[in-house]
Amino acid sequence: MSYQPPVKDLMFCIEHLSHWDQVSTLPAYADHDLPDIGAALEGFAQFCSEQVAPLSRAGDIAGARFEAGRVILPEANAEAYAQFVEMGWQALTHPVEYGGIGLPRAAGAAAVEILNAADTSFGLCPLLTDGAIEALLLTGSDEQKATYLEPLISGRWSGTMNLTEPQAGSDLGLVKTKATQRDDGTYGISGTKIFITYGAHDLTENIIHLVLARTPDAPAGPKGLSLFIVPQKMVGPDGTPGAENTVNCVSIEHKLGVCASPTAVLDYDDATGFLIGEENRGLEYMFIMMNAARFSVGVQGIAVSDRAYQRALGYARERVQSRPVNGEARDAVAIISHPDVRRMLLRMRSITEGGRAMAAATAGLLDMAHHSDDPQTAALAEFMVPLVKGFCTERAVEVASLGVQVHGGMGFIEETGAAQHYRDARILPIYEGTTAIQANDLLGRKVMRDGGDTARRFAARIADTEALLAQGNADAQAIGTSLAQARAAFETALDWLLDTSRKDIDAAFAGSVPFLMLSGTLAAGWKLAKGALAAQAALDAGQDAPFMTSKIATALFYAQNILPDCTAEQARILHGTRSLLDADFPE
Amino acid sequence: MSYQPPVKDLMFCIEHLSHWDQVSTLPAYADHDLPDIGAALEGFAQFCSEQVAPLSRAGDIAGARFEAGRVILPEANAEAYAQFVEMGWQALTHPVEYGGIGLPRAAGAAAVEILNAADTSFGLCPLLTDGAIEALLLTGSDEQKATYLEPLISGRWSGTMNLTEPQAGSDLGLVKTKATQRDDGTYGISGTKIFITYGAHDLTENIIHLVLARTPDAPAGPKGLSLFIVPQKMVGPDGTPGAENTVNCVSIEHKLGVCASPTAVLDYDDATGFLIGEENRGLEYMFIMMNAARFSVGVQGIAVSDRAYQRALGYARERVQSRPVNGEARDAVAIISHPDVRRMLLRMRSITEGGRAMAAATAGLLDMAHHSDDPQTAALAEFMVPLVKGFCTERAVEVASLGVQVHGGMGFIEETGAAQHYRDARILPIYEGTTAIQANDLLGRKVMRDGGDTARRFAARIADTEALLAQGNADAQAIGTSLAQARAAFETALDWLLDTSRKDIDAAFAGSVPFLMLSGTLAAGWKLAKGALAAQAALDAGQDAPFMTSKIATALFYAQNILPDCTAEQARILHGTRSLLDADFPE
Repeated sequence: MSYQPPVKDLMFCIEHLSHWDQVSTLPAYADHDLPDIGAALEGFAQFCSEQVAPLSRAGDIAGARFEAGRVILPEANAEAYAQFVEMGWQALTHPVEYGGIGLPRAAGAAAVEILNAADTSFGLCPLLTDGAIEALLLTGSDEQKATYLEPLISGRWSGTMNLTEPQAGSDLGLVKTKATQRDDGTYGISGTKIFITYGAHDLTENIIHLVLARTPDAPAGPKGLSLFIVPQKMVGPDGTPGAENTVNCVSIEHKLGVCASPTAVLDYDDATGFLIGEENRGLEYMFIMMNAARFSVGVQGIAVSDRAYQRALGYARERVQSRPVNGEARDAVAIISHPDVRRMLLRMRSITEGGRAMAAATAGLLDMAHHSDDPQTAALAEFMVPLVKGFCTERAVEVASLGVQVHGGMGFIEETGAAQHYRDARILPIYEGTTAIQANDLLGRKVMRDGGDTARRFAARIADTEALLAQGNADAQAIGTSLAQARAAFETALDWLLDTSRKDIDAAFAGSVPFLMLSGTLAAGWKLAKGALAAQAALDAGQDAPFMTSKIATALFYAQNILPDCTAEQARILHGTRSLLDADFPE
Repeated sequence: MSYQPPVKDLMFCIEHLSHWDQVSTLPAYADHDLPDIGAALEGFAQFCSEQVAPLSRAGDIAGARFEAGRVILPEANAEAYAQFVEMGWQALTHPVEYGGIGLPRAAGAAAVEILNAADTSFGLCPLLTDGAIEALLLTGSDEQKATYLEPLISGRWSGTMNLTEPQAGSDLGLVKTKATQRDDGTYGISGTKIFITYGAHDLTENIIHLVLARTPDAPAGPKGLSLFIVPQKMVGPDGTPGAENTVNCVSIEHKLGVCASPTAVLDYDDATGFLIGEENRGLEYMFIMMNAARFSVGVQGIAVSDRAYQRALGYARERVQSRPVNGEARDAVAIISHPDVRRMLLRMRSITEGGRAMAAATAGLLDMAHHSDDPQTAALAEFMVPLVKGFCTERAVEVASLGVQVHGGMGFIEETGAAQHYRDARILPIYEGTTAIQANDLLGRKVMRDGGDTARRFAARIADTEALLAQGNADAQAIGTSLAQARAAFETALDWLLDTSRKDIDAAFAGSVPFLMLSGTLAAGWKLAKGALAAQAALDAGQDAPFMTSKIATALFYAQNILPDCTAEQARILHGTRSLLDADFPE
């Protein structure tokens, strides 16, 4: 199964769902129009489908290996990465002043999707580098930017995020790694970091570690953490990497999936680090960049889902088995004709396209928030980020599992490839903050903190879309009916959570993940509905009937088959949390 | 993490949910009382937890290997299997006249759960042998029974089911393997069978293959299949295995999970086979035994779920991370205190116990159906089997996935063990008939064929339980309220499906899997509710307060957190099938 990047749908999402009418007026993006973006994505799509996608299966088998203190990746990965650098793909969304191409975030999200669908293990290295670039752009000094940004944006160097320690996973306040200031102003960093994605490898000339650590007199807990740049190789005055820093890879993990992405244990032994910003504000800086990284992991969910869907669709078209249940034919037919196979494929497709639509919209909001000072836009963008992360990653596990199921017994055989997506997908709801962390972020920071104002604006915008759907044809009206029910479930749950949070905080948070899934499911359905309106307008204008018809069909399927989950989640929130808190776990 | 067989809950289910008041009066089971069964299960539990459970992780790593035409299993597996035979555990549920112990099916289901929770790969060999025994008991000649049953029931020989061929998976009508009668009355069997679980191994003295094949003049399609016994080693007049038959293992599969269970490709090269029953009735015989095998695979789902739950619970008790969300403590606490971890664990527990309750009830119905001639009991038993298979296996994937999630990043590391359950679980909704096959069986054979009579009796029995719950305390009433809503969703969906099946068969079958999941989710909730009533009675009598309280809490959690899915499934059935059938899949 070759991978066909969904450039047409990605461009549809950028044009119709990413608030392009507003984003395109931002000065930062004045130089780019849709054809530009389309051409860039087509070029990247060609690179990814031809050079990266073939790495996926081989890399899964070979895996990242750890030998004699070094991480070994398949040779083909190094060659493809060198091509990636040579063609300058790391630069796509980064600022022109540091060598970037400066495309808007929706285009960046499209590129992240394509790369990670081609090979999630491969895609993780640039994804982490993006995170390091974002962090340095937002919080680095001018000197730090001058030293590190250009090589990172070129892809010649890669970046890592060093947060987790054995005792400090979701709770970063427990981080113990020490940072002791030296006379020359640098810091000596000592401690052990685990789960460091691409923490060691030889794809790049240098690796720039961003490390959370604690200075000797820092307060305990999360407010005593500082953020440091720790280059794997010290950077000379001419900007080239020189002597090794004292950061050593101790081992890499044997993982369920993304096996060609090395997950390192790094030992920092008085390694030289450079403070970013001010001491004790490290977690705050991390949180700034966390939104971007979480968003990208959500996009990885769309990526794995789409690859799993394409593989299952290809198999369902070719595999002949069983006569039609309606008796129309006497011979066995391709299994795509069987109603339940269609059901599984349409679940996969509609969830994938729903996630893509939601991600494009969120990317546009993030751009608008970044380049303007409208607090409501910023609040809505921040509200959407945990939805993208939570929905797209949890649903990716479901979609990849359906992908195995479509293949029947063949799906359980590793050679088929469906099982790899099922394994790869499983990390997505865990890293960059588990689903529960996303849900706490949504409920605590993005709903309770403003008394539900942003959440209510979100619902009001959905109601606006419903009003447009009500003026449409029968399909539009049917989508609108389901959307209204799901929105009502959201508002009921929201009221209950706001009310309950004032008197029983445990009960409110017991409903946080159901609320996240309700909100994410609703948001994806909303954006698909907006897409259906745009598709109908295009159809009415005589444009691309097969594609536009399919967009509407997908939105309708989602509305009638996925949105009903919102009502179940609402019931769990309103009626399920007391029994959850009261139950015992007897020995 | 050691495995603790849930003998207490299994005995609770046998006593209160397996129709024990009626099953125990059947002459076949007159010799066994509950203490007997409890003692047998305790003994088996000790064997499984001590001898089998430790094989699971090592076997996953080593896997079944294929070398020089032979299948190699880990040496420890062979030693444990020899113990299993020596202690006579294969005999548990089989008839006394052939050397069995003759326990009722609910006890057998309990044993299947315990063995497969200890190690699913190991458990598959006895499970397949059970299937072969069942088939021979029901359809074999006296001579065949005399030759094969005792060695199979002793566990000295094992059994296999040979159905699948590359072109014939779900659709057995496409089977091509040839069976040509010889002058001596035996048949020469030639063809290739794939996906043969324990098709080749050296745990036993002999392997008895049951093979579907086609005689030269047989009609095309499913009505031209005959069933044959093909021993791996020919059995001499003294009953001992002698010369090798011409059945060769060509390769074994590299699978996502159950890696220590060899999945063989078998080449039959004019192998000697013995016809079972009459020619062309092979599929009919297979269907007789299929109900039993499908039921056992459903029980495997409970087994994997429980092992995943126990592992996650153990981790959640030990792992300390983050302060309570309610601010009650300033230090980090064990994560089992966090509401969302409790939510995940209770989902895991309630789904597992719900499946166990439903399986015990179904086992009792199967015994009553087998030993009496009440057609309504038989129909209800047959109605329940696809529910057990569909619900327990699909939900096992969800439960195992939650088990990974509870572990956070550690869950993605293979050493932790949670990932293995996620991999192992994935085969369960596929083999012995995919979920779609179960759903077609439910809707086509068990609902439409009798015009919904059995399904309505199922609903009426649930309403009886609701009436009892309404007379109980607040918890019982709350369970009853949720159960009534779920039953109403079932009845609405049932009416729609029966009506739609008369005019749009595709639309009806487009809703078959949602209906299966609705029915299974409802049935498990119903049996948990019955269990809660029994637990309340025990509590009122002063018995085992922690256990009985926990049973009620689990039932309440399930009613309020899992049963709401029924309403979503109903919505999909009533409103989602048209968009499912109308959507295109453009190239």
